[in-house]
Amino acid sequence: MSRIGFLGLGIMGKAMALNLVKAGFDVTVWNRDSHKCDELVEQGARVAATPKAVAQVCDITFAMVADPQAALAICQGENGVAAGIAEGRGYVDMSTVDDTTSLEIANAITHAGGRFLEAPVSGTKKPAEDGTLVILAAGDESLYQQAKPAFDVMGKMAPYLGAIGQGANMKLVVNMIMGGMLNIFSEGMALGQKSGLDGQAILDVLAAGAMANPMFTIKGKMCLEDNYATSFPLKHMQKDLRLAVALGDKLDQPLPTAAATNEAFKQAKKAGYADEDIAAVHKINR
Amino acid sequence: MSRIGFLGLGIMGKAMALNLVKAGFDVTVWNRDSHKCDELVEQGARVAATPKAVAQVCDITFAMVADPQAALAICQGENGVAAGIAEGRGYVDMSTVDDTTSLEIANAITHAGGRFLEAPVSGTKKPAEDGTLVILAAGDESLYQQAKPAFDVMGKMAPYLGAIGQGANMKLVVNMIMGGMLNIFSEGMALGQKSGLDGQAILDVLAAGAMANPMFTIKGKMCLEDNYATSFPLKHMQKDLRLAVALGDKLDQPLPTAAATNEAFKQAKKAGYADEDIAAVHKINR
Amino acid sequence: MSRIGFLGLGIMGKAMALNLVKAGFDVTVWNRDSHKCDELVEQGARVAATPKAVAQVCDITFAMVADPQAALAICQGENGVAAGIAEGRGYVDMSTVDDTTSLEIANAITHAGGRFLEAPVSGTKKPAEDGTLVILAAGDESLYQQAKPAFDVMGKMAPYLGAIGQGANMKLVVNMIMGGMLNIFSEGMALGQKSGLDGQAILDVLAAGAMANPMFTIKGKMCLEDNYATSFPLKHMQKDLRLAVALGDKLDQPLPTAAATNEAFKQAKKAGYADEDIAAVHKINR
Amino acid sequence: MSRIGFLGLGIMGKAMALNLVKAGFDVTVWNRDSHKCDELVEQGARVAATPKAVAQVCDITFAMVADPQAALAICQGENGVAAGIAEGRGYVDMSTVDDTTSLEIANAITHAGGRFLEAPVSGTKKPAEDGTLVILAAGDESLYQQAKPAFDVMGKMAPYLGAIGQGANMKLVVNMIMGGMLNIFSEGMALGQKSGLDGQAILDVLAAGAMANPMFTIKGKMCLEDNYATSFPLKHMQKDLRLAVALGDKLDQPLPTAAATNEAFKQAKKAGYADEDIAAVHKINR
Repeated sequence: MSRIGFLGLGIMGKAMALNLVKAGFDVTVWNRDSHKCDELVEQGARVAATPKAVAQVCDITFAMVADPQAALAICQGENGVAAGIAEGRGYVDMSTVDDTTSLEIANAITHAGGRFLEAPVSGTKKPAEDGTLVILAAGDESLYQQAKPAFDVMGKMAPYLGAIGQGANMKLVVNMIMGGMLNIFSEGMALGQKSGLDGQAILDVLAAGAMANPMFTIKGKMCLEDNYATSFPLKHMQKDLRLAVALGDKLDQPLPTAAATNEAFKQAKKAGYADEDIAAVHKINR
Repeated sequence: MSRIGFLGLGIMGKAMALNLVKAGFDVTVWNRDSHKCDELVEQGARVAATPKAVAQVCDITFAMVADPQAALAICQGENGVAAGIAEGRGYVDMSTVDDTTSLEIANAITHAGGRFLEAPVSGTKKPAEDGTLVILAAGDESLYQQAKPAFDVMGKMAPYLGAIGQGANMKLVVNMIMGGMLNIFSEGMALGQKSGLDGQAILDVLAAGAMANPMFTIKGKMCLEDNYATSFPLKHMQKDLRLAVALGDKLDQPLPTAAATNEAFKQAKKAGYADEDIAAVHKINR
Repeated sequence: MSRIGFLGLGIMGKAMALNLVKAGFDVTVWNRDSHKCDELVEQGARVAATPKAVAQVCDITFAMVADPQAALAICQGENGVAAGIAEGRGYVDMSTVDDTTSLEIANAITHAGGRFLEAPVSGTKKPAEDGTLVILAAGDESLYQQAKPAFDVMGKMAPYLGAIGQGANMKLVVNMIMGGMLNIFSEGMALGQKSGLDGQAILDVLAAGAMANPMFTIKGKMCLEDNYATSFPLKHMQKDLRLAVALGDKLDQPLPTAAATNEAFKQAKKAGYADEDIAAVHKINR
Repeated sequence: MSRIGFLGLGIMGKAMALNLVKAGFDVTVWNRDSHKCDELVEQGARVAATPKAVAQVCDITFAMVADPQAALAICQGENGVAAGIAEGRGYVDMSTVDDTTSLEIANAITHAGGRFLEAPVSGTKKPAEDGTLVILAAGDESLYQQAKPAFDVMGKMAPYLGAIGQGANMKLVVNMIMGGMLNIFSEGMALGQKSGLDGQAILDVLAAGAMANPMFTIKGKMCLEDNYATSFPLKHMQKDLRLAVALGDKLDQPLPTAAATNEAFKQAKKAGYADEDIAAVHKINR
């Protein structure tokens, strides 16, 4: 069995790495704050001092960090992955980054002789823990085949989507649809309640029809309880809507309802709800 | 057990009446074209010559006809329900009508001494046959209680929603959300495919996440196969979107994404897709 | 010279009737509150006790009242215009009414043997006083020719637009464009000021280019001074936007920016600015 | 009187430089294709071989080139302006460039010891010839004062707008308003004509009211004649709308009608009208 590295042990990364360890993989972890490695070590993981050190000893190194800056930081520099990756080794960045960053990392890795996959995920803490993430892989197809057993542990599906950039595009498409669904749902709830309908009755009717979906159930409850504890920060959704609309600009694809949704989320940001859950867009609709 | 009437044996009405007969209710049917009564009679139903005649002999008379004009026609006039309904009998109109028509029918029935429920349904042919419609009942609450056993045969849920008009409002809310979901889905599919993603892969990823819902599966397949065989005519969805936006106007409820969706469906109508399925909105987005 | 009647001496009507008197027309006036007739009488007008009495003695009777209800009231009933209008006499309603009301009045007048023109105006108090209204005439073309000399006194242009309903349609088109222009202007002002530009500089640059128009100058000043003293009530603009979008629905004409504008004005109504000037839409954009 | 340089003699630049020569300025010109300098020389201008050579001998050098690439090219490199500009000399780039390019040029010039102004213009060929451009200047204020006499020859107004970037921002704001006005105008024309109104009558009524502006007159004629000979290419307007919406994203400023307008222009691009005049957006609305 191949030796696996895992960089970044935040809420998501820790759960994902733990699943790999529990599944019997030989996992070497690294985290900026090394204390977070302790629990993994207790479960059987090894630790390395730098991203470079991880890459040097592993066949495939996975990474899951907070943002594009962090993703670049662990790849570049004297202690970065690119400095340690040997000919033919693989690097899989599962962080959510923009396409420019993804290309920059891909170039750094391939110039160093490595192979690269971008593999952003759809899903948050719970699916990470349950190993039911949706993994959106794109890039080197041989590395995809090699990484598949690990993907199968971390997620419930991991389609291969094509060249670098297609993982990010899929994520934009999915999140754009999510934002649009959430906003039309919120408008509908607001309209229904203003017309005198009971909010729970609206949720019940939706749950009984062809539109029934877990998101309406979860976010609908949040709207009714006026509790927007953050699972997916609203500002991140607005950023994805913006990027999706920008992708439409690039491809000459009109997206009128996505554009209207983007403006609704901007209004919610302007109103001060940037750090609340995406469901807080309901505060400007209700 | 009370005696039940059923007016209108189109695709929907026939399936609903048949379920009532099979469930053991004593059902008397009427249809404008009386040939359509034959199959019901074979299954044990009685036939009456006019809506009035049905209402005269039944405790509760249900109706399911094509449009507001037909709904008014079977209620009014010398052979109409209002002419036959006796003190305390009930009339339940399950057709989809506008609020003005619903009020007009309600007034005709109550002036004649009857009780009235509007009970439009969500769901098409298949749920009608399977007895899994969602029934949106509003109006006389005692009649609702009395009709509940019949509703339980025809549908999987039948919440009581309040005064006359609330059934129609719920239907507008639900259909507005459906139209908005469908259009953002279509925009997302178009964006994804233009960016080089495989259409089926997009459907698979959506089906694996929190947004998974039967409508995306069904309509997504139609979009990929470019086959828009009509289940729910696009022009009817546009009408509902228009009415929902108008209800928002009345209640001072801004609905920016619903309004953008309405314009998309209008564009589809303008392009000649009025009689195709609602999924044909994809033809203007793709 | 023909004898002219004028019904309704509100802000607009009084100014218009006064211009007719000053131009030498033989004018007979009526107003619900007869005190308002005094100034006209001082200038040489006659007074009649009822709309019927005016119609009985005048070749053409003009009306300018506040709303559809008032327009119907002065036309119908035992003291109404229709009761007094003789064969061949003309009635010109310059009030702003919906198309149903306009048709109802047209029918009442023509059944009584009279001829009818709808002639809603574009312009407020100042143009009414200056005789520079834009008069949107539609209906009986022979009456239009006969009324033209009076239109020329009250307005700077009075095109003949066709059958009954076209005056109202033109007004909707013009007001829809006005609402859209105002909202995109407001969005631009808000964007510019947030980016650090001086508001007056934006107005100056706009005033120097191909988009220069009096409305931007007037409403721009109101926005900069945060003073929304009502000239054209915001709720009336929202109503016109709603009716324009509804006309688009009827004609299968998509109107995406008009629809977005309608939602912006609805948001302004919801925020409590219904009775302020249309420029108050800026309060939700800024 | 100071010595003035002018780089770029395309349609715009040639007209602008000619006006400076005719006004008596001592002008040295350069153009990539030197043949275009001939007419200027006949009128009294001097010629230099490179942008560097112009910058070396002039107190202020103006530039007007086609796009950001060209703007960078004439500034950078061994023959570029930055290589020739001496301490205290001024460079005024009147080309339309994005903010990143503008900053890059500003940095190159100031590092070389020069002073810099960005001064994009509003207006096309005719205003350039007539000296009635609107010049949107931002950057070094002392240079602005020094360049003012030349601005006064080339334009009818040239406000000083603040730090580098504010010229570009003002241009985005103005063009965003222009795009929005044009699209709501087009929607109104389409709605009116579908309802049976005469197109010229709509233009006449608009021309008589508070919204009267040269753009409606010019573009309205193009719409009626179905002639979209390019004055301002539609794709450039769509780009500006996109940048304006992106600026709104950056500043948390919702711009719902600008966003809807952007989608309309994208639809027009998708339909193949990218290189026609902005008025061709009417082809998708009508």
